[in-house]
Amino acid sequence: MYFYDPAERDPKELVPGINARTFWGENMLIAVVDLDPDTHMPRHSHHHEQLGNVIQGQMELTIGDEKRLVKPGDVYIIPSGVEHEAQTFDESVKVIDVFSPVREEYK
Amino acid sequence: MYFYDPAERDPKELVPGINARTFWGENMLIAVVDLDPDTHMPRHSHHHEQLGNVIQGQMELTIGDEKRLVKPGDVYIIPSGVEHEAQTFDESVKVIDVFSPVREEYK
Repeated sequence: MYFYDPAERDPKELVPGINARTFWGENMLIAVVDLDPDTHMPRHSHHHEQLGNVIQGQMELTIGDEKRLVKPGDVYIIPSGVEHEAQTFDESVKVIDVFSPVREEYK
Repeated sequence: MYFYDPAERDPKELVPGINARTFWGENMLIAVVDLDPDTHMPRHSHHHEQLGNVIQGQMELTIGDEKRLVKPGDVYIIPSGVEHEAQTFDESVKVIDVFSPVREEYK
């Protein structure tokens, strides 16, 4: 089984208003994340390295002490242990987040 | 430096008609890949695990002995060592590919 359609996978609610559909291999887990408008992912960190890509919409993303308004196409890299948080505004946002090692609690 | 705009990064030509803009951390490398119409990525394999997500367009993707027409939103997971190839048709295609460990030759 190599191919997946996120529309066929049940979402997991990470926090209210933020839902992820996740898929994983041996070393990485990919999360297709939908964020509702006016939603906040609280500041947090984890030992997993995280790469992200914005698919749709804009949001404010803070990584360490850098804060940016990210837009479709933008890439971000969150090293292991670095705190980060996100805030959406008047539109829904879709991002891809990839974690290594596999984030077991997101399976 | 946590944030990147692929438009500001020079592309690398992987094969004629397939160009990637790459970014990396410690454990993963993300490639924003643009494929021209009527372009072929020859069958190949590597020890890196690869996750992908289709951003724009449709293409035929073969992983091992499974062949699919993939569309925007689709996710694919290519385990270490499994051969794969891609073929585009009458439109340009954009995908995100993430490799772990970092694919050094794509830096």
